[in-house]
Amino acid sequence: MIIEIDRNSIITITQQLFEFFSDRILSGLFKDGQQLPSIRTLSKELNISPMTIVKAYNELEKNGLAVTIQGKGTYVNQRNNIEKLNSFPEHNDFQWQMGIPDYLSRSQFQSNSNLTYGNNMYNLSIASINYKLLPTADILKDSLNLTERNIEYLAQYPPVQGDHEFRNVLSNYLKSKEISTAPENILITSGSQQGISLIASTFVGPGDIVVMETPTYPGAIDLFKSRGAVILTVPVDNEGMRTDILISLCDKHSPKIIYTMPNFHNPTGCSMSLRRKIELLDIAKFNNSIIVEDDPWSEISYKKEKIKSIKSMDTDGHVVYIKGLSKILGPAYRLAAIVAEGSILSRLINAKANHDLGTSMLNQKTLLDFIKSNKMNSYLDNLNKKLLRRRDKVINLLKHNAPSGVNWTIPEGGINLWITLPKSLNVEKLLYHSVTTKNISFLPGTICYPNEVEFNHLRICFTYLDEEHIENIIIELCNLMKLLNSDEKGSCYVPVI
Amino acid sequence: MIIEIDRNSIITITQQLFEFFSDRILSGLFKDGQQLPSIRTLSKELNISPMTIVKAYNELEKNGLAVTIQGKGTYVNQRNNIEKLNSFPEHNDFQWQMGIPDYLSRSQFQSNSNLTYGNNMYNLSIASINYKLLPTADILKDSLNLTERNIEYLAQYPPVQGDHEFRNVLSNYLKSKEISTAPENILITSGSQQGISLIASTFVGPGDIVVMETPTYPGAIDLFKSRGAVILTVPVDNEGMRTDILISLCDKHSPKIIYTMPNFHNPTGCSMSLRRKIELLDIAKFNNSIIVEDDPWSEISYKKEKIKSIKSMDTDGHVVYIKGLSKILGPAYRLAAIVAEGSILSRLINAKANHDLGTSMLNQKTLLDFIKSNKMNSYLDNLNKKLLRRRDKVINLLKHNAPSGVNWTIPEGGINLWITLPKSLNVEKLLYHSVTTKNISFLPGTICYPNEVEFNHLRICFTYLDEEHIENIIIELCNLMKLLNSDEKGSCYVPVI
Repeated sequence: MIIEIDRNSIITITQQLFEFFSDRILSGLFKDGQQLPSIRTLSKELNISPMTIVKAYNELEKNGLAVTIQGKGTYVNQRNNIEKLNSFPEHNDFQWQMGIPDYLSRSQFQSNSNLTYGNNMYNLSIASINYKLLPTADILKDSLNLTERNIEYLAQYPPVQGDHEFRNVLSNYLKSKEISTAPENILITSGSQQGISLIASTFVGPGDIVVMETPTYPGAIDLFKSRGAVILTVPVDNEGMRTDILISLCDKHSPKIIYTMPNFHNPTGCSMSLRRKIELLDIAKFNNSIIVEDDPWSEISYKKEKIKSIKSMDTDGHVVYIKGLSKILGPAYRLAAIVAEGSILSRLINAKANHDLGTSMLNQKTLLDFIKSNKMNSYLDNLNKKLLRRRDKVINLLKHNAPSGVNWTIPEGGINLWITLPKSLNVEKLLYHSVTTKNISFLPGTICYPNEVEFNHLRICFTYLDEEHIENIIIELCNLMKLLNSDEKGSCYVPVI
Repeated sequence: MIIEIDRNSIITITQQLFEFFSDRILSGLFKDGQQLPSIRTLSKELNISPMTIVKAYNELEKNGLAVTIQGKGTYVNQRNNIEKLNSFPEHNDFQWQMGIPDYLSRSQFQSNSNLTYGNNMYNLSIASINYKLLPTADILKDSLNLTERNIEYLAQYPPVQGDHEFRNVLSNYLKSKEISTAPENILITSGSQQGISLIASTFVGPGDIVVMETPTYPGAIDLFKSRGAVILTVPVDNEGMRTDILISLCDKHSPKIIYTMPNFHNPTGCSMSLRRKIELLDIAKFNNSIIVEDDPWSEISYKKEKIKSIKSMDTDGHVVYIKGLSKILGPAYRLAAIVAEGSILSRLINAKANHDLGTSMLNQKTLLDFIKSNKMNSYLDNLNKKLLRRRDKVINLLKHNAPSGVNWTIPEGGINLWITLPKSLNVEKLLYHSVTTKNISFLPGTICYPNEVEFNHLRICFTYLDEEHIENIIIELCNLMKLLNSDEKGSCYVPVI
């Protein structure tokens, strides 16, 4: 455990301490029941006033993440109870290892995977499309053409930047989305997550300013935080990122990176208006910032108008565009493409070499026939019709079953709904009961906030469950909301350690 | 460009500056002809004496990496000339991007790939086995069993830790190597490179001490340096890492990580004796250090005795063992396995989630049948016989054609020879001429030294070239050595910018 306090930061020391602990507790890096350092020790070690630490610990308690026992100390509490049910056994026989400090600050997906891979879990948490709706069999059946030439390729190190034939196919595919790019400007990565990881490790270091939407994609928060970035947040409304707020932020702090998911934003599902996209590009130009445009699902759209990406308007190499393929073609191939220019691109290629020497050739050669065929478009058309039906079904179920005070977004694309609970109902509590009593998991909104965590949101994916379970599961979840909410009003929630 | 000088480091400021620039020049991150910062600017910016900078620049010149033109400045020079021939075109139309600093310190593979993917290059550089000798067609032909159950797996996010069935197969495979481990202690990574990357980003930060063999695997140097590690080096002899020197290093500095490739060490081919392996484990225990045992090729062995890994003797979770599969089964699948225990393992799994959410399921499902079948052993037996013949052929060619003063190792396993030139012959010069006049590339030893670079070694791989080219290419290379060496004796080598 290495706590680094930045005394020159624009973020208060109390807030830095709170985030340090809440990130690790919500991620499951700190385990339930684990004792936090004593106020005296921490105050001495970091040379900060005991009062500051007390404030940070109080904030943890207020949010149900820790509990203090008078005369004994402060202990990690709450959701991580769930982990005990599913996680692999802790090895307590390697005590010396606990003395080895690390540089992890958050990892939502590990904590998440404890929820995900539990036995018989009804999973509303994972943002993916049900396997029966994906074209897996079609892609794999006659994808690999085992000619002598292909065998030669498949027996070699992949080019670091990606297979040339695959980049060629993607460059044509992107043209249909008005992104005019050459194969030379494409870098293949192992999924969007690795794309963001390359950007973070290349361009972000301690104290660098990264702007993110709030709430936002947890995997991106994990990466920027682990690099020691100062994260400034901009809220989203139904036109996407609030550029007016961004402009006033930029008066004081020039961001190095602006991370955005403009189309069917994760987790809220809202989209950025064209006006704001143009404004954002102007802001980036003025501040010499890099825009990271993360676009995993513009293909999954329920509206008629064509979507214009920020990248398609970028003439000066300000936008690093990430086209993830996991959401639309399936996540098992781990494939995404970065589109970038100039020395930003060449530096990312260097980083890719350092990270893993290049993405598996087998996956690239497997997917390319499907993408370049006319199967791709008809598959997507068909898919969108089915997913729209699912969206409407789930919204209808919420309408009839959710207790009053619960609200949700109606996304025009993507596969997630963002649900807001009454402030009195803590989502971590809902999750704990939902997993332990109903075998239903969802994504708690708490992990989607880079800084000031809100405890009354959740994200559910409406496309992952088997069709026949949807109705039951949504109703069960709504009933649990009702139960806990009325319970909440009557009695005080006392966390147990 | 962010130069960070550590005034408390055990490494002198001159040496830190020299390494900062030489790493970037040898990697190709700095381009040929690029002007280095003026002495005045740098002295002011870093608040260090101009004399220190002059010394560092002189050291660069001495090693042929830069050239100073009186009254104008110091410029990057030498091998990167080669890049011009093969690299993608530089985009000079995005000048604003040059103002964006990055955190890359080295990337040998990108610089290398410029040599590797040139047209018609005879490649002695890449450490891989010729595609005709690999079991690619066998593996792919009937590997993917497209049952409904497999299709379901292949349409989902892979488990972060790796497919359970694949980990099961690997745990059995490792038992045959006396490494007794459960699937729960295995983490699947995208090649050994990602394995090292996960370890570096989790456990190494600025100022942490990492011990490496010198020379060593360049990809590992890239990663530890980019994390700001203080790298201490220990030479190797024909019993492997000099543990006596390591012990005296540890008297003063306790290493957090000891990175070693004990079997058929890259690049020298030498192996660590059992006595030293036991000693190394004791040293790690005493110092609470993590040993990273990188084992990509213990299967490629030309001697009868069984090889005992350090991991097989590890009872306390001190060794993080990396079993790379790229060298023996082909690099296109990007698959390796980490074996570790306790919280070191669980922290690496978190890091894996952050890096890319998990390794492609397709690759794991593709390889597992071959590994668990009895084809694996007979393939390896057969392979080793063929590779031994190649090794002997190349050694014989060197014996008859290399000029006097040139020496080489005779490895008892692996696929590389380490060649030492007379001190008068700079290997970067040899590489430049070899690539430009003969279309022959090899790995310059310069990139294998973490600290004090030696300029008179090269690594050649004897298993990658097509059989019919070997004789010619080795003779051509030997002739070039002769030519340049005699030239060197007669005239002073003047670098041209």
